Amino acid sequence: MPILKVQTWAGISKEKKRDFVETLTREAVRILDCAPEAVTVLIDEIPKENWGAAGELCTERFPDK
Amino acid sequence: MPILKVQTWAGISKEKKRDFVETLTREAVRILDCAPEAVTVLIDEIPKENWGAAGELCTERFPDK
Amino acid sequence: MPILKVQTWAGISKEKKRDFVETLTREAVRILDCAPEAVTVLIDEIPKENWGAAGELCTERFPDK
Amino acid sequence: MPILKVQTWAGISKEKKRDFVETLTREAVRILDCAPEAVTVLIDEIPKENWGAAGELCTERFPDK
Amino acid sequence: MPILKVQTWAGISKEKKRDFVETLTREAVRILDCAPEAVTVLIDEIPKENWGAAGELCTERFPDK
Amino acid sequence: MPILKVQTWAGISKEKKRDFVETLTREAVRILDCAPEAVTVLIDEIPKENWGAAGELCTERFPDK
Repeated sequence: MPILKVQTWAGISKEKKRDFVETLTREAVRILDCAPEAVTVLIDEIPKENWGAAGELCTERFPDK
Repeated sequence: MPILKVQTWAGISKEKKRDFVETLTREAVRILDCAPEAVTVLIDEIPKENWGAAGELCTERFPDK
Repeated sequence: MPILKVQTWAGISKEKKRDFVETLTREAVRILDCAPEAVTVLIDEIPKENWGAAGELCTERFPDK
Repeated sequence: MPILKVQTWAGISKEKKRDFVETLTREAVRILDCAPEAVTVLIDEIPKENWGAAGELCTERFPDK
Repeated sequence: MPILKVQTWAGISKEKKRDFVETLTREAVRILDCAPEAVTVLIDEIPKENWGAAGELCTERFPDK
Repeated sequence: MPILKVQTWAGISKEKKRDFVETLTREAVRILDCAPEAVTVLIDEIPKENWGAAGELCTERFPDK
Protein backbone atom coordinates (compact mmCIF):
# COMPACT_ATOMS: atom_id res chain seq x y z
CA MET A 1 0.00 0.00 0.00
CA PRO A 2 2.59 2.67 0.68
CA ILE A 3 3.99 4.64 -2.21
CA LEU A 4 7.30 6.37 -1.58
CA LYS A 5 8.51 9.02 -4.02
CA VAL A 6 12.03 10.48 -4.14
CA GLN A 7 12.41 13.79 -5.98
CA THR A 8 16.07 14.50 -6.67
CA TRP A 9 18.30 16.17 -9.26
CA ALA A 10 18.42 14.23 -12.52
CA GLY A 11 21.40 12.01 -13.25
CA ILE A 12 21.72 9.73 -10.22
CA SER A 13 23.28 6.35 -10.97
CA LYS A 14 21.42 3.03 -11.33
CA GLU A 15 23.19 1.84 -8.17
CA LYS A 16 21.80 4.74 -6.16
CA LYS A 17 18.33 4.08 -7.57
CA ARG A 18 18.60 0.43 -6.53
CA ASP A 19 19.84 1.53 -3.09
CA PHE A 20 16.83 3.86 -2.68
CA VAL A 21 14.40 1.14 -3.79
CA GLU A 22 15.90 -1.53 -1.51
CA THR A 23 16.31 0.80 1.48
CA LEU A 24 12.93 2.56 1.31
CA THR A 25 11.13 -0.75 0.78
CA ARG A 26 12.89 -2.37 3.76
CA GLU A 27 12.19 0.61 6.02
CA ALA A 28 8.54 0.95 4.93
CA VAL A 29 8.02 -2.77 5.62
CA ARG A 30 9.59 -2.30 9.09
CA ILE A 31 7.64 0.86 9.99
CA LEU A 32 4.25 -0.10 8.55
CA ASP A 33 4.53 -3.88 9.06
CA CYS A 34 3.41 -4.49 5.46
CA ALA A 35 4.62 -6.91 2.76
CA PRO A 36 7.42 -5.85 0.39
CA GLU A 37 5.08 -6.60 -2.53
CA ALA A 38 2.79 -3.81 -1.26
CA VAL A 39 5.51 -1.14 -1.50
CA THR A 40 5.99 1.07 -4.58
CA VAL A 41 9.00 3.38 -4.87
CA LEU A 42 9.11 6.09 -7.54
CA ILE A 43 12.22 8.12 -8.36
CA ASP A 44 11.41 11.47 -9.94
CA GLU A 45 14.59 12.88 -11.54
CA ILE A 46 14.23 16.66 -11.95
CA PRO A 47 16.77 18.59 -14.07
CA LYS A 48 18.82 20.98 -11.87
CA GLU A 49 17.60 23.81 -14.13
CA ASN A 50 14.02 22.98 -13.14
CA TRP A 51 14.68 23.18 -9.38
CA GLY A 52 14.69 26.54 -7.64
CA ALA A 53 16.24 27.13 -4.19
CA ALA A 54 16.28 30.49 -2.35
CA GLY A 55 15.07 32.21 -5.51
CA GLU A 56 17.78 30.86 -7.81
CA LEU A 57 17.98 28.07 -10.39
CA CYS A 58 20.05 25.27 -8.86
CA THR A 59 22.26 25.20 -11.97
CA GLU A 60 23.34 28.67 -10.92
CA ARG A 61 23.23 28.36 -7.12
CA PHE A 62 25.04 25.00 -7.16
CA PRO A 63 27.11 24.93 -10.40
CA ASP A 64 28.57 21.54 -11.27
CA LYS A 65 32.24 21.29 -10.24
CA MET B 1 -12.24 20.87 -12.41
CA PRO B 2 -11.04 17.30 -12.06
CA ILE B 3 -7.43 16.52 -12.84
CA LEU B 4 -6.67 12.88 -13.58
CA LYS B 5 -3.06 11.72 -13.64
CA VAL B 6 -1.81 8.39 -14.99
CA GLN B 7 1.64 7.27 -13.80
CA THR B 8 2.90 4.43 -15.97
CA TRP B 9 6.15 3.03 -17.37
CA ALA B 10 7.66 5.27 -20.03
CA GLY B 11 7.20 4.39 -23.68
CA ILE B 12 3.45 3.96 -24.15
CA SER B 13 2.22 4.74 -27.66
CA LYS B 14 0.43 7.93 -28.77
CA GLU B 15 -2.68 5.81 -29.42
CA LYS B 16 -2.72 4.58 -25.82
CA LYS B 17 -2.25 8.16 -24.58
CA ARG B 18 -5.22 9.29 -26.71
CA ASP B 19 -7.24 6.33 -25.41
CA PHE B 20 -6.46 7.30 -21.80
CA VAL B 21 -7.35 10.97 -22.44
CA GLU B 22 -10.63 10.14 -24.22
CA THR B 23 -11.65 7.42 -21.76
CA LEU B 24 -10.76 9.21 -18.51
CA THR B 25 -12.41 12.42 -19.71
CA ARG B 26 -15.62 10.58 -20.72
CA GLU B 27 -15.77 8.70 -17.40
CA ALA B 28 -14.98 11.78 -15.27
CA VAL B 29 -17.75 13.70 -17.09
CA ARG B 30 -20.16 10.79 -16.37
CA ILE B 31 -19.21 10.36 -12.70
CA LEU B 32 -18.87 14.02 -11.74
CA ASP B 33 -21.47 15.43 -14.16
CA CYS B 34 -19.00 18.11 -15.30
CA ALA B 35 -18.14 19.51 -18.74
CA PRO B 36 -15.36 17.88 -20.82
CA GLU B 37 -13.63 21.27 -20.98
CA ALA B 38 -13.23 21.12 -17.19
CA VAL B 39 -11.25 17.87 -17.30
CA THR B 40 -7.43 17.74 -17.41
CA VAL B 41 -5.61 14.46 -17.96
CA LEU B 42 -1.86 14.20 -17.34
CA ILE B 43 0.24 11.20 -18.35
CA ASP B 44 3.39 10.86 -16.29
CA GLU B 45 5.76 8.42 -18.04
CA ILE B 46 8.27 7.05 -15.54
CA PRO B 47 11.32 5.08 -16.76
CA LYS B 48 11.10 1.42 -15.63
CA GLU B 49 14.48 1.91 -13.93
CA ASN B 50 12.91 4.64 -11.76
CA TRP B 51 10.05 2.43 -10.54
CA GLY B 52 10.60 0.03 -7.66
CA ALA B 53 8.28 -2.90 -6.86
CA ALA B 54 8.76 -5.38 -3.96
CA GLY B 55 12.22 -3.93 -3.35
CA GLU B 56 13.51 -4.36 -6.90
CA LEU B 57 13.99 -2.04 -9.88
CA CYS B 58 11.28 -2.91 -12.42
CA THR B 59 13.94 -3.22 -15.15
CA GLU B 60 15.21 -6.19 -13.15
CA ARG B 61 11.94 -7.58 -11.73
CA PHE B 62 10.17 -7.30 -15.10
CA PRO B 63 12.93 -7.45 -17.78
CA ASP B 64 11.77 -6.54 -21.28
CA LYS B 65 11.09 -9.67 -23.36
CA MET C 1 2.10 -0.88 -12.12
CA PRO C 2 -0.04 2.05 -13.17
CA ILE C 3 -1.09 4.54 -10.54
CA LEU C 4 -4.09 6.68 -11.42
CA LYS C 5 -4.86 9.75 -9.30
CA VAL C 6 -8.09 11.75 -9.38
CA GLN C 7 -7.93 15.28 -7.96
CA THR C 8 -11.41 16.63 -7.40
CA TRP C 9 -13.33 18.93 -5.04
CA ALA C 10 -13.72 17.43 -1.58
CA GLY C 11 -17.02 15.82 -0.62
CA ILE C 12 -17.73 13.26 -3.34
CA SER C 13 -19.78 10.28 -2.21
CA LYS C 14 -18.48 6.79 -1.44
CA GLU C 15 -20.45 5.51 -4.44
CA LYS C 16 -18.63 7.91 -6.79
CA LYS C 17 -15.29 6.88 -5.27
CA ARG C 18 -16.14 3.22 -5.89
CA ASP C 19 -17.23 4.10 -9.44
CA PHE C 20 -13.91 5.86 -10.10
CA VAL C 21 -11.90 2.93 -8.66
CA GLU C 22 -13.83 0.29 -10.61
CA THR C 23 -13.90 2.28 -13.87
CA LEU C 24 -10.28 3.49 -13.88
CA THR C 25 -9.01 0.03 -12.95
CA ARG C 26 -11.06 -1.64 -15.71
CA GLU C 27 -9.91 0.91 -18.32
CA ALA C 28 -6.24 0.80 -17.24
CA VAL C 29 -6.32 -3.02 -17.48
CA ARG C 30 -7.84 -2.72 -20.99
CA ILE C 31 -5.42 -0.04 -22.25
CA LEU C 32 -2.19 -1.35 -20.67
CA ASP C 33 -3.08 -5.06 -20.72
CA CYS C 34 -2.04 -5.41 -17.07
CA ALA C 35 -3.60 -7.28 -14.12
CA PRO C 36 -6.17 -5.50 -11.93
CA GLU C 37 -3.95 -6.26 -8.91
CA ALA C 38 -1.26 -4.05 -10.47
CA VAL C 39 -3.51 -0.98 -10.57
CA THR C 40 -3.61 1.63 -7.77
CA VAL C 41 -6.21 4.40 -7.80
CA LEU C 42 -5.87 7.39 -5.46
CA ILE C 43 -8.60 9.97 -4.92
CA ASP C 44 -7.28 13.32 -3.74
CA GLU C 45 -10.16 15.40 -2.36
CA ILE C 46 -9.22 19.09 -2.40
CA PRO C 47 -11.39 21.62 -0.56
CA LYS C 48 -13.06 24.04 -3.03
CA GLU C 49 -11.40 26.90 -1.11
CA ASN C 50 -7.99 25.39 -1.96
CA TRP C 51 -8.66 25.25 -5.71
CA GLY C 52 -8.15 28.35 -7.84
CA ALA C 53 -9.61 28.76 -11.36
CA ALA C 54 -9.16 31.84 -13.57
CA GLY C 55 -7.66 33.72 -10.63
CA GLU C 56 -10.52 33.09 -8.21
CA LEU C 57 -11.14 30.70 -5.32
CA CYS C 58 -13.65 28.09 -6.53
CA THR C 59 -15.81 28.73 -3.45
CA GLU C 60 -16.35 32.20 -4.91
CA ARG C 61 -16.30 31.41 -8.63
CA PHE C 62 -18.63 28.42 -8.21
CA PRO C 63 -20.64 29.06 -5.02
CA ASP C 64 -22.61 26.07 -3.77
CA LYS C 65 -26.27 26.30 -4.79
CA MET D 1 17.56 19.12 -2.23
CA PRO D 2 15.83 15.76 -2.13
CA ILE D 3 12.16 15.66 -1.29
CA LEU D 4 10.84 12.29 -0.13
CA LYS D 5 7.09 11.73 0.03
CA VAL D 6 5.34 8.83 1.74
CA GLN D 7 1.76 8.11 0.67
CA THR D 8 0.08 5.80 3.16
CA TRP D 9 -3.33 5.11 4.67
CA ALA D 10 -4.45 7.84 7.02
CA GLY D 11 -4.11 7.35 10.77
CA ILE D 12 -0.47 6.41 11.34
CA SER D 13 0.91 7.39 14.73
CA LYS D 14 3.18 10.35 15.47
CA GLU D 15 5.93 7.87 16.39
CA LYS D 16 5.75 6.24 12.96
CA LYS D 17 5.84 9.67 11.31
CA ARG D 18 8.94 10.56 13.33
CA ASP D 19 10.48 7.19 12.40
CA PHE D 20 9.83 7.84 8.68
CA VAL D 21 11.30 11.36 8.89
CA GLU D 22 14.41 10.25 10.80
CA THR D 23 14.97 7.13 8.69
CA LEU D 24 14.35 8.64 5.24
CA THR D 25 16.50 11.67 6.08
CA ARG D 26 19.37 9.49 7.32
CA GLU D 27 19.20 7.22 4.24
CA ALA D 28 18.90 10.12 1.77
CA VAL D 29 21.95 11.76 3.37
CA ARG D 30 23.84 8.46 3.04
CA ILE D 31 22.81 7.75 -0.58
CA LEU D 32 23.07 11.28 -1.97
CA ASP D 33 25.84 12.55 0.31
CA CYS D 34 23.85 15.69 1.09
CA ALA D 35 23.25 17.61 4.34
CA PRO D 36 20.28 16.69 6.55
CA GLU D 37 19.10 20.31 6.30
CA ALA D 38 18.64 19.79 2.54
CA VAL D 39 16.17 16.91 3.02
CA THR D 40 12.40 17.40 3.10
CA VAL D 41 10.08 14.52 4.02
CA LEU D 42 6.34 14.79 3.42
CA ILE D 43 3.81 12.30 4.75
CA ASP D 44 0.61 12.20 2.71
CA GLU D 45 -2.11 10.41 4.71
CA ILE D 46 -4.82 9.15 2.36
CA PRO D 47 -8.12 7.84 3.78
CA LYS D 48 -8.52 4.08 3.09
CA GLU D 49 -11.78 4.91 1.31
CA ASN D 50 -9.80 7.07 -1.15
CA TRP D 51 -7.34 4.31 -2.06
CA GLY D 52 -8.30 1.71 -4.66
CA ALA D 53 -6.47 -1.63 -5.08
CA ALA D 54 -7.36 -4.31 -7.66
CA GLY D 55 -10.57 -2.42 -8.48
CA GLU D 56 -11.87 -2.22 -4.91
CA LEU D 57 -11.95 0.47 -2.23
CA CYS D 58 -9.39 -0.51 0.43
CA THR D 59 -12.03 -0.07 3.15
CA GLU D 60 -13.78 -3.02 1.49
CA ARG D 61 -10.78 -5.05 0.30
CA PHE D 62 -8.96 -4.66 3.64
CA PRO D 63 -11.68 -4.05 6.27
CA ASP D 64 -10.36 -2.93 9.64
CA LYS D 65 -10.19 -5.86 12.09
CA MET E 1 -2.76 24.88 -19.25
CA PRO E 2 -0.40 25.55 -16.36
CA ILE E 3 -1.16 23.99 -13.01
CA LEU E 4 0.54 25.62 -10.06
CA LYS E 5 0.56 23.81 -6.70
CA VAL E 6 1.52 25.33 -3.35
CA GLN E 7 2.45 22.88 -0.59
CA THR E 8 2.50 24.65 2.77
CA TRP E 9 1.77 23.99 6.45
CA ALA E 10 -1.92 23.53 7.13
CA GLY E 11 -3.91 26.40 8.58
CA ILE E 12 -3.26 29.36 6.26
CA SER E 13 -6.08 31.89 6.09
CA LYS E 14 -8.62 32.26 3.29
CA GLU E 15 -7.09 35.68 2.51
CA LYS E 16 -3.66 34.13 1.98
CA LYS E 17 -5.21 31.43 -0.24
CA ARG E 18 -6.92 34.12 -2.32
CA ASP E 19 -3.63 36.05 -2.50
CA PHE E 20 -1.81 32.93 -3.75
CA VAL E 21 -4.51 32.22 -6.36
CA GLU E 22 -4.62 35.82 -7.63
CA THR E 23 -0.84 36.28 -7.61
CA LEU E 24 0.17 32.93 -9.13
CA THR E 25 -2.50 33.27 -11.83
CA ARG E 26 -1.40 36.80 -12.73
CA GLU E 27 2.28 35.81 -12.85
CA ALA E 28 1.64 32.60 -14.86
CA VAL E 29 -0.39 34.63 -17.38
CA ARG E 30 2.50 37.14 -17.63
CA ILE E 31 5.28 34.52 -17.95
CA LEU E 32 3.50 32.04 -20.23
CA ASP E 33 1.30 34.53 -22.09
CA CYS E 34 -1.76 32.33 -21.52
CA ALA E 35 -5.36 33.16 -20.54
CA PRO E 36 -6.32 33.33 -16.85
CA GLU E 37 -9.01 30.73 -17.54
CA ALA E 38 -6.23 28.27 -18.46
CA VAL E 39 -4.55 28.54 -15.05
CA THR E 40 -5.30 26.15 -12.17
CA VAL E 41 -3.88 26.80 -8.70
CA LEU E 42 -3.99 24.07 -6.04
CA ILE E 43 -3.16 24.69 -2.38
CA ASP E 44 -2.06 21.54 -0.57
CA GLU E 45 -2.20 22.14 3.19
CA ILE E 46 0.06 19.65 4.98
CA PRO E 47 -0.13 19.28 8.78
CA LYS E 48 3.15 20.44 10.43
CA GLU E 49 3.38 16.96 11.99
CA ASN E 50 3.48 15.47 8.47
CA TRP E 51 6.37 17.65 7.29
CA GLY E 52 9.95 16.67 8.12
CA ALA E 53 12.91 19.07 7.92
CA ALA E 54 16.53 18.18 8.73
CA GLY E 55 15.36 14.87 10.18
CA GLU E 56 12.80 16.34 12.59
CA LEU E 57 9.03 16.71 12.59
CA CYS E 58 8.28 20.42 12.02
CA THR E 59 5.99 20.43 15.07
CA GLU E 60 9.14 19.77 17.07
CA ARG E 61 11.70 21.73 15.03
CA PHE E 62 9.42 24.78 14.75
CA PRO E 63 7.04 24.62 17.76
CA ASP E 64 4.14 27.04 17.57
CA LYS E 65 4.78 30.18 19.65
CA MET F 1 8.94 25.36 4.07
CA PRO F 2 6.67 26.02 1.09
CA ILE F 3 7.14 23.99 -2.07
CA LEU F 4 5.70 25.49 -5.23
CA LYS F 5 5.35 23.33 -8.32
CA VAL F 6 4.61 24.57 -11.84
CA GLN F 7 3.29 22.00 -14.31
CA THR F 8 3.49 23.33 -17.85
CA TRP F 9 4.07 22.14 -21.41
CA ALA F 10 7.63 21.03 -22.00
CA GLY F 11 10.04 23.37 -23.76
CA ILE F 12 9.88 26.64 -21.82
CA SER F 13 13.07 28.70 -21.92
CA LYS F 14 15.66 28.98 -19.16
CA GLU F 15 14.69 32.67 -18.79
CA LYS F 16 11.07 31.75 -18.11
CA LYS F 17 12.19 29.12 -15.59
CA ARG F 18 14.32 31.74 -13.81
CA ASP F 19 11.38 34.16 -13.91
CA PHE F 20 9.10 31.55 -12.31
CA VAL F 21 11.68 30.73 -9.61
CA GLU F 22 12.37 34.38 -8.76
CA THR F 23 8.71 35.44 -8.89
CA LEU F 24 7.20 32.51 -6.99
CA THR F 25 9.92 32.72 -4.33
CA ARG F 26 9.40 36.47 -3.86
CA GLU F 27 5.60 36.09 -3.65
CA ALA F 28 5.75 33.09 -1.28
CA VAL F 29 8.10 35.05 1.01
CA ARG F 30 5.65 37.99 0.94
CA ILE F 31 2.49 35.90 1.52
CA LEU F 32 3.88 33.46 4.10
CA ASP F 33 6.45 35.79 5.69
CA CYS F 34 9.12 33.09 5.41
CA ALA F 35 12.80 33.22 4.37
CA PRO F 36 13.75 32.79 0.69
CA GLU F 37 15.99 29.89 1.73
CA ALA F 38 12.88 28.02 2.90
CA VAL F 39 11.23 28.15 -0.54
CA THR F 40 11.56 25.35 -3.11
CA VAL F 41 10.23 25.81 -6.65
CA LEU F 42 9.89 22.81 -8.98
CA ILE F 43 9.13 23.09 -12.69
CA ASP F 44 7.52 19.97 -14.11
CA GLU F 45 7.72 20.09 -17.93
CA ILE F 46 5.08 17.79 -19.42
CA PRO F 47 5.18 16.94 -23.16
CA LYS F 48 2.11 18.41 -24.95
CA GLU F 49 1.30 14.86 -26.10
CA ASN F 50 1.00 13.80 -22.44
CA TRP F 51 -1.48 16.55 -21.54
CA GLY F 52 -5.17 16.06 -22.29
CA ALA F 53 -7.72 18.90 -22.38
CA ALA F 54 -11.46 18.50 -23.12
CA GLY F 55 -10.83 14.89 -24.16
CA GLU F 56 -8.10 15.65 -26.71
CA LEU F 57 -4.30 15.43 -26.72
CA CYS F 58 -2.98 19.01 -26.57
CA THR F 59 -0.74 18.30 -29.59
CA GLU F 60 -3.99 17.92 -31.53
CA ARG F 61 -6.21 20.48 -29.75
CA PHE F 62 -3.47 23.13 -29.81
CA PRO F 63 -1.17 22.26 -32.76
CA ASP F 64 2.08 24.20 -32.83
CA LYS F 65 1.91 27.13 -35.29
